[in-house]
Amino acid sequence: MEDRTVKMIDQSRLPYMFEIAHMKDCTEIANAINNMVIRGAPAIGAAGAYGLALAALHAPEKGFEHYLMKAGEALKNTRPTGRDLFYAVDRILDNIESGNERGRNSVIKTANEIAQENTSACKRIGEFGSELIRDGCRVLTHCNAGWLACVDWGTALAPVYFAKRQGKGMFVYVDETRPRCQGSKLTAWELGHEGIDHAVIVDNAAGFYMQRGEIDIVIVGADRIALNGDVANKIGTYEKAVLAKENGIPFYVAAPTSTFDSTCRSGKDIPIEERDQSEVSYMSGLKDSGKTERIRVVPEESKAKNPAFDITPARYITGIITEKGIVKPSDVKSLLGKTAAD
Amino acid sequence: MEDRTVKMIDQSRLPYMFEIAHMKDCTEIANAINNMVIRGAPAIGAAGAYGLALAALHAPEKGFEHYLMKAGEALKNTRPTGRDLFYAVDRILDNIESGNERGRNSVIKTANEIAQENTSACKRIGEFGSELIRDGCRVLTHCNAGWLACVDWGTALAPVYFAKRQGKGMFVYVDETRPRCQGSKLTAWELGHEGIDHAVIVDNAAGFYMQRGEIDIVIVGADRIALNGDVANKIGTYEKAVLAKENGIPFYVAAPTSTFDSTCRSGKDIPIEERDQSEVSYMSGLKDSGKTERIRVVPEESKAKNPAFDITPARYITGIITEKGIVKPSDVKSLLGKTAAD
Repeated sequence: MEDRTVKMIDQSRLPYMFEIAHMKDCTEIANAINNMVIRGAPAIGAAGAYGLALAALHAPEKGFEHYLMKAGEALKNTRPTGRDLFYAVDRILDNIESGNERGRNSVIKTANEIAQENTSACKRIGEFGSELIRDGCRVLTHCNAGWLACVDWGTALAPVYFAKRQGKGMFVYVDETRPRCQGSKLTAWELGHEGIDHAVIVDNAAGFYMQRGEIDIVIVGADRIALNGDVANKIGTYEKAVLAKENGIPFYVAAPTSTFDSTCRSGKDIPIEERDQSEVSYMSGLKDSGKTERIRVVPEESKAKNPAFDITPARYITGIITEKGIVKPSDVKSLLGKTAAD
Repeated sequence: MEDRTVKMIDQSRLPYMFEIAHMKDCTEIANAINNMVIRGAPAIGAAGAYGLALAALHAPEKGFEHYLMKAGEALKNTRPTGRDLFYAVDRILDNIESGNERGRNSVIKTANEIAQENTSACKRIGEFGSELIRDGCRVLTHCNAGWLACVDWGTALAPVYFAKRQGKGMFVYVDETRPRCQGSKLTAWELGHEGIDHAVIVDNAAGFYMQRGEIDIVIVGADRIALNGDVANKIGTYEKAVLAKENGIPFYVAAPTSTFDSTCRSGKDIPIEERDQSEVSYMSGLKDSGKTERIRVVPEESKAKNPAFDITPARYITGIITEKGIVKPSDVKSLLGKTAAD
């Protein structure tokens, strides 16, 4: 946030255009989350925090708390599945002091803290996770859980970036990740910029390469993690986890503990967002002329169904890479207890 | 084949345009198979047979067999994975009589027989398979194994079409089937024309609906079936089979016995076609203007990998629906022996 404006990479235009989205009030932040200009659980969390910071700047001194509560509601209504947004918004709303200068600054300070904490958590995830990656490792990842999805470094990709800085060679299989193609549009673009060797594959081909023994480890991010270690993440994550287990390939989830949700006993308690069927029926990309175009890929008469996330049961997960170390899914409960007590 | 011309639906233009491709010589048939104007193992098999029929019409009387052998080679070089093409071409080449009128007619007669046999096999597959479908059944299918992929009826979809005629209600989940989207472009279009309730889902979402108990049976086609019951089919079939098993959902493969290959002991002997990476990097569809457009969906700097098929090991397959009945994968060997002895 600079000059009462929140600036984030417009992820809806990548990889064709690199643009910074400028958001001047909380409604613009909420719209940007809705339209996936901002996406990725940690990035959405930070954006939510800054949305309240902007709200604090616009709120009247009298009715300050009410104004912020309403802004928080609007933010929470954007995307139901990711935990970080609720974590960030609630952390600020739970600590409102007053509507004066000091109260406003306190909200902004907490927003900055949330963003900075995410960066340092992702850095530690990268450090811990890089130990899992040996030289020559072939990594599969799903969706985008890189620096675009966070404030910096990323979650699932942070270990890859750290391993690269440690001089290790790697090859990353990038699941295209239909319907929004965060893999081909965002992860491939990120890896290209990091100079990491990779290939985009259709989501159907991940099992093929696992079966052939050409994938050594799977690392994905998370949108929300329940107390029993069940993980909500981008649709298709569950498929990859089952296939990894079937092929004896370690399957890791990388996420800061702000993604843990003590109110969800299991994955059954996590709401799954169903998004508009047009995300399946249409695709956007680049024409030969260099202009972006949206095309219909499903017959007009046919319906589509579009669940945005799925639940990977804890039993398929080898470990969760957090800023506090790599833990087993069964350790989430105790780790959350410890975190709360910190 | 009418008037020395083979006529087939141009599958590369569906669902946006319904056009009949006219092919006047064997090279045009081979090109149509290469470019996926003709696709689907049984349809390719019939097209291969008619390719030789056209070759027989053009072949000189002297050197007739050599001419047909060369035509057969060209046809076999189009697509390596599907079995029906090799079955059809070899059946004709193994029975060449002479280059005179009678010899020509014999080739044409065999081509007609192959096409007719496929139709009656698909019809019986539909009859046998429909017993697996109860009223209200929710079916998942991958790729397109309907009448477009065959001469008529289809393989995986024939049971659905028969069940419909028996008055059973159904809902079909249609895997989009990236990269070529045969599910969303062909299967959805076919089901629409058959008046069968369906929804297109991204390939990532099949596991989600299985996990939720919203899929009762999976039926797919096959490009080649090895002696041990391993099945080669469209990329992603293996993923669905593993997920079906994990969720206790019956997984059926529907195929005529012409898809069985006595020269392949297991799936390891089946060659997997790797197709051009542009199939992953580009998608085609319809603009709002109604014109078709091809757009790039992967960054220009990123590579893609594109295996077109995968192998589903026999242990994931509940049964194979053939024109001779529903058999276990372990029965392929004995069924093939019986067929050969027929």
